Amino acid sequence: MQKVVVIGTGKVATQLTKAILVAGFEVVQVVSRSDVSAARMFAEMGQTLPYTIHKNEVCKQADLYICSVKDDAITDAIDGISIPDRALLVHTSGSTESTVLAPFAAHYGVLYPMQTFSYGKEVDFSKVAVYIEANSDIFENRLHIFAHKLTPNIKHVDSAMRAKVHLAAVFACNFTNHLYTIAENILKEANLPFSDLLPLIDETTQKVHTLSPKEAQTGPAIRHDDKIITKHLSQLNNREKAIYQLLTESIQDDKL
Amino acid sequence: MQKVVVIGTGKVATQLTKAILVAGFEVVQVVSRSDVSAARMFAEMGQTLPYTIHKNEVCKQADLYICSVKDDAITDAIDGISIPDRALLVHTSGSTESTVLAPFAAHYGVLYPMQTFSYGKEVDFSKVAVYIEANSDIFENRLHIFAHKLTPNIKHVDSAMRAKVHLAAVFACNFTNHLYTIAENILKEANLPFSDLLPLIDETTQKVHTLSPKEAQTGPAIRHDDKIITKHLSQLNNREKAIYQLLTESIQDDKL
Repeated sequence: MQKVVVIGTGKVATQLTKAILVAGFEVVQVVSRSDVSAARMFAEMGQTLPYTIHKNEVCKQADLYICSVKDDAITDAIDGISIPDRALLVHTSGSTESTVLAPFAAHYGVLYPMQTFSYGKEVDFSKVAVYIEANSDIFENRLHIFAHKLTPNIKHVDSAMRAKVHLAAVFACNFTNHLYTIAENILKEANLPFSDLLPLIDETTQKVHTLSPKEAQTGPAIRHDDKIITKHLSQLNNREKAIYQLLTESIQDDKL
Repeated sequence: MQKVVVIGTGKVATQLTKAILVAGFEVVQVVSRSDVSAARMFAEMGQTLPYTIHKNEVCKQADLYICSVKDDAITDAIDGISIPDRALLVHTSGSTESTVLAPFAAHYGVLYPMQTFSYGKEVDFSKVAVYIEANSDIFENRLHIFAHKLTPNIKHVDSAMRAKVHLAAVFACNFTNHLYTIAENILKEANLPFSDLLPLIDETTQKVHTLSPKEAQTGPAIRHDDKIITKHLSQLNNREKAIYQLLTESIQDDKL
């Protein structure tokens, strides 16, 4: 698989396209919803690529079609594109079954990069874990060979396992990052910058490289330090108070 | 301030004592609740120090008395120890007012290292932010000079600001770490190891070094990807479901 069509122009599509080019593959076309979306993607990449906004103009000479759009939009984005019988169609979603692609291609699968992608932040793709799946061994093998040029960290999982991986990633990344936002807002009340927390955040992350998260747990909740917990709750508004209470109860639950 | 007495033998006391020794100060005595606690601390440190379990035997020749125990236990741990008038007494708590020490010493204050300390994980103290406070400028200055040999990262804050810092730290560190525990449990259901998440966790942390947490936010909640959110909720038990819902609502709240 050398020639790739990328359907989508968002954050994952952009970073993935960059990694595909760096690995030496040819991105023969990008399929975009609009000229503006394509322009934004190419500006972010620092280079332009052939693209179309018309589904009937999608290149038929590629070996691999990668649909990387918001999960809700996958089938709409592909519907109307004719995928050649000898090619593989994949999406990049953590939580969408591979079989949603069955109506559109003989050979289909998933290439899910478990990583958080933001504009303005380069990602070292060789450190990204990629979860793959295909509806035949032959194409899963071809997809493995392709993905292995992007990162050594490839896992073969079915859709049910991948959904668990994605759910775990939401807790470990998306929700974690939101707790940083809450922490930033609390520090603002004392006129202190978020950057004051970075050594603590770095150490929290470093610890779970050598200890299990359960062993690494510290703080008033695990110490059952009720006096401090009560004081903290009194400083919080309704929603943050509910979050504090729920996470404290969860930490104190021995069953975990 | 050269001669130090450390009251307490827990995780913070242990790491702080190590850092004090490395900085070239003399820990003239450790005050422990029991022989067993003292032995555990010295085993963790890899060296023994003079210690006592009797409050009437606490050394009166020190310049600095550091009480590093669970917040609830601070006053009990100090009560009965006679602190010399020329010395400074501090505690190491994030959320306890400095004034709880007023009944026990003429000069008192706080030395709060904002870091997460666990047994079996060395901490580079030079990267720790230390928040200090004292009830006179002279002693606050002396405490600054002392603390500056432990880390260049010293902040002068009053008890109200320090309480905010500690509350922010609970969200950014303790609660974040607990989300790792939940993620680990979800991965276990798919027989996958927690270590699979480390590249994602590392990148999540790295991102907030260059983007604000709000800019760095990704995932189904911020994308309002309701189909995925519903699917995720259906996979969770009651408490994790409540945590997922509350954090999703909080991410989607524009006011933050």
